[in-house]
Amino acid sequence: MNTVDLDTIREAHARIRERIRWTPVMTNGRLDELSGSRLFFKCENFQETGSFKARGAMNAVLSLTDAEAARGVATHSSGNHAAALSWAAGLMGIPSFVVMPSTASRIKVSAVERYGGRIVFCEPSHKAREEAADKVVRETGALLIHPYDNPRIIAGQGTAALEFLGEVPDLDAIVCPVGGGGLLAGTSIVAKGLRPGIKLLGAEPEGAADTKLSFESARRQQVEHPASIADGLLAFVGGMTFPVIRRLVDGIVTVSDQEIAAAVRQFLEVMKIVVEPSGAVAYAAVAGKRAGVGGMRVGVILSGGNLDLERTPWLK
Amino acid sequence: MNTVDLDTIREAHARIRERIRWTPVMTNGRLDELSGSRLFFKCENFQETGSFKARGAMNAVLSLTDAEAARGVATHSSGNHAAALSWAAGLMGIPSFVVMPSTASRIKVSAVERYGGRIVFCEPSHKAREEAADKVVRETGALLIHPYDNPRIIAGQGTAALEFLGEVPDLDAIVCPVGGGGLLAGTSIVAKGLRPGIKLLGAEPEGAADTKLSFESARRQQVEHPASIADGLLAFVGGMTFPVIRRLVDGIVTVSDQEIAAAVRQFLEVMKIVVEPSGAVAYAAVAGKRAGVGGMRVGVILSGGNLDLERTPWLK
Repeated sequence: MNTVDLDTIREAHARIRERIRWTPVMTNGRLDELSGSRLFFKCENFQETGSFKARGAMNAVLSLTDAEAARGVATHSSGNHAAALSWAAGLMGIPSFVVMPSTASRIKVSAVERYGGRIVFCEPSHKAREEAADKVVRETGALLIHPYDNPRIIAGQGTAALEFLGEVPDLDAIVCPVGGGGLLAGTSIVAKGLRPGIKLLGAEPEGAADTKLSFESARRQQVEHPASIADGLLAFVGGMTFPVIRRLVDGIVTVSDQEIAAAVRQFLEVMKIVVEPSGAVAYAAVAGKRAGVGGMRVGVILSGGNLDLERTPWLK
Repeated sequence: MNTVDLDTIREAHARIRERIRWTPVMTNGRLDELSGSRLFFKCENFQETGSFKARGAMNAVLSLTDAEAARGVATHSSGNHAAALSWAAGLMGIPSFVVMPSTASRIKVSAVERYGGRIVFCEPSHKAREEAADKVVRETGALLIHPYDNPRIIAGQGTAALEFLGEVPDLDAIVCPVGGGGLLAGTSIVAKGLRPGIKLLGAEPEGAADTKLSFESARRQQVEHPASIADGLLAFVGGMTFPVIRRLVDGIVTVSDQEIAAAVRQFLEVMKIVVEPSGAVAYAAVAGKRAGVGGMRVGVILSGGNLDLERTPWLK
């Protein structure tokens, strides 16, 4: 199957729901006041492995044939997909191989190790990661599970929106972070499928705004030297995710690292929850009041909580 | 009324429940593994004002006569009680006066200010605080609401345990932090009232272990120069709370600042929630395996989440 639709995502949810967490939706009066919207936060920071990536990874792993499962799975990832894939594979008793940049944060490396993933470090470049992953696949026969350009992954990531709109059906808008676009593509299929009039926005760091550039020029483009404290959103929007985003999403809003840092702080200080920078960009977009959702009931996806306390000088 | 019993606490809950949050109970498989117990966390870090103190403060404020309400309320507090009293008074439109030590953390000072409390700073000593509070009361006619030696406060704090045992009735044990003893006294009245066989433990920082000393000698005693990163637990156990604790609690477990810091880190990294040091001592006691609750179903009260990020060198 190569097309993901609402039914595919419902099937994915039925497949994974006993293995993942139905994460809570939280609200907070003070953040409502600060943003001028009525906010509903889908807390994927509380998801297994600390991010929504557990959904897609579990869906991919549970969809393997017996022969594929015997050889295992592999990935290159900035961290959360790697942890999630190791976790899903480990739970199902199959091997996993993870190519990670040598600059990956301690918290993300130790998560992969804890779940039993076998790590292969490489240089922190897109090219080095792909080459190392190819080598692992050649040597082990493992199936490469791409972090976003994979229908099983997109379908799995979409299950968060299925829960979200099941619990809060009358949202006027949803704001969702975008890196490679797996979460945003899955979310948009669910949101526009269930509620065609909903306003759906992607939120992206200014320093890695390839999706905004691509969206506005209607042509997939990359930016040079993507950089942001939102280290989970540095990937370029994918060949499989971009057409979905282009068709279903209403706009892409960018936020500065300073706004992302302020959002992380507000989650810690006001809501008492840990949200990593990449997980906080959707709220940062709403708080910055450039999302055009003032006065609306807005669903905000908090995509992850793997904040590395040793790498947060900007928190002080 | 000077005696607090289960009925008093039920009345308090009926009085305050529309104004406070029924906080969630969270669980976490990894912390279960690390501690060797099945843990249920009562998340008062998500309570209004960031701590359980909102319960007692709201109960006290809603119990004022009209004449008392017109003159307002006052307190001296290490922070969370002050914020909670300002909040409760502010919601009900009555004045509040707060004496705080000049060393109080930024986050706690700004909370009181935000809720509309009028702050009077004093030297950071027990004596200076009481003198400054007396002066405020003389000058304004406000009613002093003691942070723990007050039956309305004890009854209000006990409402957390009422919700907790209502939601998880079959706990084998409850572990609760103790500073002045308001939360522990209220909790013990509820826990032993509803479930006489339950094991009830207080958890206290080693550096401020007056309750342990008092409990084991059956005589209320103080310690010299109490000091701990758990700044909400430096108060001495009260004249009103100690007899209740002495009668109903099964033991007091102490934990080091290092153990408290490790517990705070685990909440941030594993559970993705913010718990302040004082709020983490009960879990630290269980994680240290000196509480004698291995294999049990243990209720752990996370009393607050007002972690001051500017004062956490021990987090790195």
